[in-house]
Formats: sequence, structure tokens, C-alpha cells
Amino acid sequence: MSNETAVKANKTVRVGLLGLGTVGSGVMKVLLHQQALIKERTGYRIEVPHILVRDPKKKRKVKVFPEQLTTDADRIVDDQDISIVIEVMGGVEPARTILLKALRSGKHVITANKELLAKHGSELMKAAQESGVQLLFEASVAGGIPVIRFLQGYLTANRVYEISGILNGTTNYILTKMEQTGQTFAEALAEAQELGYAEADPTDDVEGYDAAYKLAILTNLAFDVEVPVSDIFREGIKEIRPIDLGWAREFGYVIKLLARSRKTERGIELSVGPCLLPLSHPLARVHDVFNAVTVYSDVVGDVTLVGKGAGEYPTASAVIEDLTALLRQSGQVLRTTCWQTSSHRCLETESSRFFIRFTSAEQESQQLEQQLKRVIAEWGGRVIHQVKKEALGKENFGWIVQNLPRKRLIELLDQASANGLLSQQPLVLPCLDQVATQSRKLASAI
Amino acid sequence: MSNETAVKANKTVRVGLLGLGTVGSGVMKVLLHQQALIKERTGYRIEVPHILVRDPKKKRKVKVFPEQLTTDADRIVDDQDISIVIEVMGGVEPARTILLKALRSGKHVITANKELLAKHGSELMKAAQESGVQLLFEASVAGGIPVIRFLQGYLTANRVYEISGILNGTTNYILTKMEQTGQTFAEALAEAQELGYAEADPTDDVEGYDAAYKLAILTNLAFDVEVPVSDIFREGIKEIRPIDLGWAREFGYVIKLLARSRKTERGIELSVGPCLLPLSHPLARVHDVFNAVTVYSDVVGDVTLVGKGAGEYPTASAVIEDLTALLRQSGQVLRTTCWQTSSHRCLETESSRFFIRFTSAEQESQQLEQQLKRVIAEWGGRVIHQVKKEALGKENFGWIVQNLPRKRLIELLDQASANGLLSQQPLVLPCLDQVATQSRKLASAI
Repeated sequence: MSNETAVKANKTVRVGLLGLGTVGSGVMKVLLHQQALIKERTGYRIEVPHILVRDPKKKRKVKVFPEQLTTDADRIVDDQDISIVIEVMGGVEPARTILLKALRSGKHVITANKELLAKHGSELMKAAQESGVQLLFEASVAGGIPVIRFLQGYLTANRVYEISGILNGTTNYILTKMEQTGQTFAEALAEAQELGYAEADPTDDVEGYDAAYKLAILTNLAFDVEVPVSDIFREGIKEIRPIDLGWAREFGYVIKLLARSRKTERGIELSVGPCLLPLSHPLARVHDVFNAVTVYSDVVGDVTLVGKGAGEYPTASAVIEDLTALLRQSGQVLRTTCWQTSSHRCLETESSRFFIRFTSAEQESQQLEQQLKRVIAEWGGRVIHQVKKEALGKENFGWIVQNLPRKRLIELLDQASANGLLSQQPLVLPCLDQVATQSRKLASAI
Repeated sequence: MSNETAVKANKTVRVGLLGLGTVGSGVMKVLLHQQALIKERTGYRIEVPHILVRDPKKKRKVKVFPEQLTTDADRIVDDQDISIVIEVMGGVEPARTILLKALRSGKHVITANKELLAKHGSELMKAAQESGVQLLFEASVAGGIPVIRFLQGYLTANRVYEISGILNGTTNYILTKMEQTGQTFAEALAEAQELGYAEADPTDDVEGYDAAYKLAILTNLAFDVEVPVSDIFREGIKEIRPIDLGWAREFGYVIKLLARSRKTERGIELSVGPCLLPLSHPLARVHDVFNAVTVYSDVVGDVTLVGKGAGEYPTASAVIEDLTALLRQSGQVLRTTCWQTSSHRCLETESSRFFIRFTSAEQESQQLEQQLKRVIAEWGGRVIHQVKKEALGKENFGWIVQNLPRKRLIELLDQASANGLLSQQPLVLPCLDQVATQSRKLASAI
């Protein structure tokens, strides 16, 4: 049963809000501040009778009446007058259970919860379809950038074949600071935490989980498949040092935590990890807490969207624009998604060039250098850029190696390590030199 | 009368196409190539029974049956079975008359015609509203970039206060080539013409008319006002020389033909013209035939969209995505626009820094330099960067001047010219150093 008619008949719409943290407060503030505009453009006055919170006594960053707060989710789910539920509490449970109940009782759901969608998206989607209600989730990926709307509300006569994005603002801020100031990872992280850009426990961001959730969602939408997050090759940024960023720049690259997904004949290539992007790449200049996504499609070519990926207002904006879309558009806001666990293989994305950084004791550095170059040449690879720097009796090497796969390079460096030639953990990062030449191929096939 | 119901009942939709040039051919090719995908996602098979052309005998770049071609627009407008008309013929007449007739006979209209919309948009919009049909025009601005859908189909709880864009691919290609190769304007234009990026008569592009039409459309949508194209301050790129691009780069800028529109308390500031953008500006790295638009809104902040702004497939994509939206969405695809000639003032956009380039005979250069600096200082301005280059007995100067308005600088250079001190026409270009600090201001007001 769709409750569209109910929504339309009553020019006041009652919304239940789950969560009143940063995003929830933002939603309340924006609803208040923009209420005249929303009324003018959608015809609806929005009321929020109930807000689910854990602790009703907690000091809030927004003015709410005590009677609005509740610790009982059923107050919202069972309220027949509430036709839309907004979830900004995060985490899998109890969000999953509450949202399933809300959908099944005929309420539209708007959620910002990337982890929930990445892990249980198809279950929620199915519940929405069965109840004839809509599940909208613009805020779950890249905050203020309307990439979900672009993929699922706009592109229809286009087939997407690749998506690349900077989907995590925290790590982008840290990498930007490290590059600009020479700070270490730990120093830049501490600063990000002070500014509220990083959580006290930064694991989700710096280990790439957050970006992987978002990549799973985008991949599911773009390719109509369900990709388990655990199938995504994932690397964090903790091993990156200022020297890597400096050398990358010397070679004409910048290091970004990139989430990539590409449909190939072999399967779906997916990865989240730090990459070297040439300065000419559309995502190379996306700095600080900004996010960006490039979507490659067969007719329109590549379109890049850049904006704030997190924060109170950009995320609240995405939530509320989902709400205004529900109020303004009488049909489905998004194309019907079919996330099915189809027979696809998940593969690591490929690269033909890698940056490697390794360190040896000074007295062994020459032997090591010669040995590595010899093996690389034997295996058909080539060192196309190289730089080294001596510090504290150790020699640091930074190379760009062409035509060897990652696993070969790791094998090589593991061998050197086993032989006692490396004095620190080496680093291997892919370079993204080729920017989707496939688009021209497909367009010319038309 | 809306013919939505008619469209929905019949799972074949019949479309009339006006024009079969580059974009029209692209539309036909994409409809054919993607028909299975469109059917799968919208439920509709699309037929194009009639295509209006000037010369039915002309060789076409796409396979069409002779019986599809017609020189009689009434074949389309009077055909009761055609519910959607796509116009890609360009120019004001006869497009305006045919589209008004089509709208008034209850057909939805999709157009790529920026000139027509900029000059007669409100008339067409009114006709559409009166007939209960939709007028869609994504392809009219920035080709493959869905900026219309972003402004009018997405942003609802956001108030836009500024738009900046690189909206013309031809001039962006010319400026990119001039900078990268040192070619003159004439050389780069000739190359663009050879590659099909520029028309035989390039006036519309290089004089900024094309960008001004697009800016008028975006301004109308963003600020709900009707802006006459003639009110837009407009400059072309013919006076730009390779030396300007080189000097701009030395000062940390790149020169782009920028279209800007900003709502201020004094009125709407509008301009199209070459500007110096700092390298950190989101539009500074948009090269070749790419287009980009940054939209500044009060909640979400700034969002930049980058993609191909012209060409057969990007433009056809925009046309066809308007078509799929009509088929997929049961309500209005775009928010209701109200282009009204309200009491607003159109003003030139302001800048606090300008690049000036002027040339004098060598023997007079010292006198000129001293005189100009003295007057600039007297008027409260300051030269913050300067460079000069001697060539063929002449001295070329490139300065960045702060705190003087454009008209003062022009006055100054006119005076020097009247005194016989300048040996060539000088150049004055604004620098865009401040990137919308207003967003923070407004967000903090919430």
C-alpha cells in the first residue's frame, strides 16, 4: 500500500526522526530555517512529532521540545499519522529492525546509514517494494553530492561501466594536510580529530571501511548486483608517509584514497585504497574534506560531481532533498533497483604502474637496488621513475615500476625482506594513469 | 490537458523530432542502440514516425527511412498520436512557433535550444503550464552535465545564491590550446574549426553569446527572474594573447571564459567574459571541450558538476534522459519555474583585482610605468604583481592591480592611450580570488 495519497491529501506531513546527533540536529535546524521555502515549493508544512534518542536528558545542539523526544521507536513506527521516517542514528542495529518495521507499516524511509545499506540494502529495498513505499538514501554516499540521484534518478538511457570516487572526507583531509604541511599521519589525524573531522576511534575512516560501504552502495546501483563489502579489496592510509606524498608529486602525481568499481568481462573490479593520480586526473585537485565522484557511462561520457562529503549541513541537505522529492514527485523518485546476488566475480582493480617505497641500511642499498632492478627486468617490468633519499644511515627508495602486477612486486619485496635487505615495511601503491579510454570505445560502437 | 495518461496506457510512445543535424542524428543513433535498455527501465518502446528536416534529399549520418522525413512541421504538431516533441533544430524561428503550437496541442516538449529559451523561455514555459504539459531542456545548458535537473529537479530546500560556469566548450578548447601550445587565438580557432569544435562563423562562441544564453537560463531558474540576455555584461576571448595566458600562469592563475551570476542585495550581478582564476579554484582545471558549473547554495554549500558540454552523444544523452524522465516519472520532472520580469537590477559582477596588459614604445615605457603607478596609488589602488617583456622595440606590461574598479582602470588606460603612450589596445580582465565566502556566512545563520 502506498500512502502517497495520504501524504498529498493532508498538506501537513508528519515525519519521524531517528537520531539527534550531528546530522539529526542539522536536519531539525534546516527544516526550521527553510520551512517557508519548503512550503512554497512543495506545498507542505513539515512536522516532526517524535524524535528517537538514547538519552532524552542530554544537552542538544538544537532547540526541541521535551515532548518531542522519545526512547521508544514504536512511538514512531506505530504512529499512523507519520508517513515518512528519517533515520540518522547510524549502525546496523537497532536501525535495521526499526526501518524494516517502518517500511512494512507503509512508511517511506529516508536514511543516511551507509553501513546498514551496504550490509542489508537488498533486504530493505525488498521490504520497501513489497509495501509500495520508497527507500531514499542520498545522504548515505558523499554527503551533499547528489550521486545517488544522478545514478538512479537521472541516468536511464545510459549504461554505467565505471565509478571512481573520493568518498571519505576524513582521509582526504588527512592526506591533504600531510601533503601541504609535511605532517605525519598521526599528526594530521590528531588535527582532524580536534576539528571534529575524525572520530575518537578513526578505524572506519582511515582503514577504508567507510569508503567501502559507500562503494558497495554505488556498485549495487550502477551494475544491479549485490556486492558484499567483504569482497572489496581494501587498504587504509596509515602506512602513507609525507615522503610518499612528496615523491608522488615529484613524479607528477597526488595520493588519494580512491574507491573504484568497474564492470569488465571478467567480473566486477572493486577496490578502496590509496592511489597515485596524475595531476590531470579529474579527482586530483579535490582537497580537504571535499568528496568527488566520477561516473563513466556509455552515452554521456564521464561526469564528475564535487562537493562537501560530510558535515552537519551538507548531509542534512541530502536528507531533506530526499524528503522534498517525496513531497514534490508523485511517482518513484529513483528507478527501481534490483540488487541481486547475481553470478558476478569481484576482482581487485588492475593497474599497469605502481609506486613502491622501500628502505634499506645504507651499506646494503646498492646491492638491493641492483638486485631488485635485475629481477624486475627479468620479469618484464621497468623502473620508469626513481628517487632516493638518505636519512639516519638508511636509504629510502621511491620508484615507479611499469608492467608488473601488484602481487609480483609484493613477492619481490617480500623476498628482499626475507633476505634481511629491507629495514622497514615497504609500500606498494597503484598509479592510475589511464582514465577510462573505454568511453570512446563504447561511444564509437553506437 | 495532460496527456500523461495517454502516454502510460500505450506502452509505445511516439515522438516527433525537429532537426536531424549533429544532435538529431545522435538522438536517433542512441535511441536505436539503447532501445532494449530504455524499454527495460521505462517500460516504453520509442517510435519516431516523423522527423522535420529542411532538405529530405541531404545525406544523413544516421539511417532513417525516407518516409520518416518531412519538411512540414504540421505533420508532427497535428499528429494526435505524437505525445512528445524533441527540438534540436536551433535558432529562434521557426522553432518558437512550432514549439508553441506543440505545447498548446498538449504535447510535452524537449528542447536543446538555448537561444530560444534565453529569449522566449517564459513564453514557452507559460504555454506548457497552461496546457498541463512539461517543457524540458537539459541539453540547452552544458550538454551532458545535468545542471538543470540539479537546480530544478533536485535543489528544493536550498536557496541558490551564486552560479559560476565554464559553459562554452569551443572557447575553453581554444584557451586550453593557446595556453598549452602558445598558439595565437586565430591559430587555435582554426584548429577548433578543423576538428568540428567551432562553427565556420564562430561569433556566437568566441564573443560569448552562447555562454550568455546559457547563463540567462541558469539565472532564470536559480533566482526565479527573467534576465534579458542584453542585460548581461559580455566579453569575448578574441583579445586574449598567448602572453596573457603565460603571465596569468606566472601569477598563479589560469584564464577561462567564465559565466557568473550572483544574487546580491543591490541586484543580480551577471557577466560572461574571460577571467583569471586562481589554480585552486574548482573550475581552474577544466580543460579542452569540457564544461563545468559550480552552484553555491545556502545549505549544501558549493557543488561542482563537470562533464562534456557539447558534442553529438553528450547532448543526445541529455535530450534522451529528459525523454526517459517523462516516461518514468508520473509527476513534474522539474519544479514549477516562475520566470517573471520582476523588479531586479542587472549589474556587472565585481572584482577587487584585475589583470591589465598594455604596450608602449620602448622609449616611453618608463614614463608610462611611473605615471600609471602614480595615478593607481592616488586612487587607492596597488600593483601587486608585475612583469614586462620587450619585443620588437616595444615594451609589454602585465600587472595585477588591487582595489581599483574596472571602470577606473579603463579610464586610466584610455587616458594613457589619448596621450599617445600606448601602442596597442590594452586588456583588462578580472581576477576571481574570493570563492564564495558567503556560503559559510549563510550556513552559520541557520
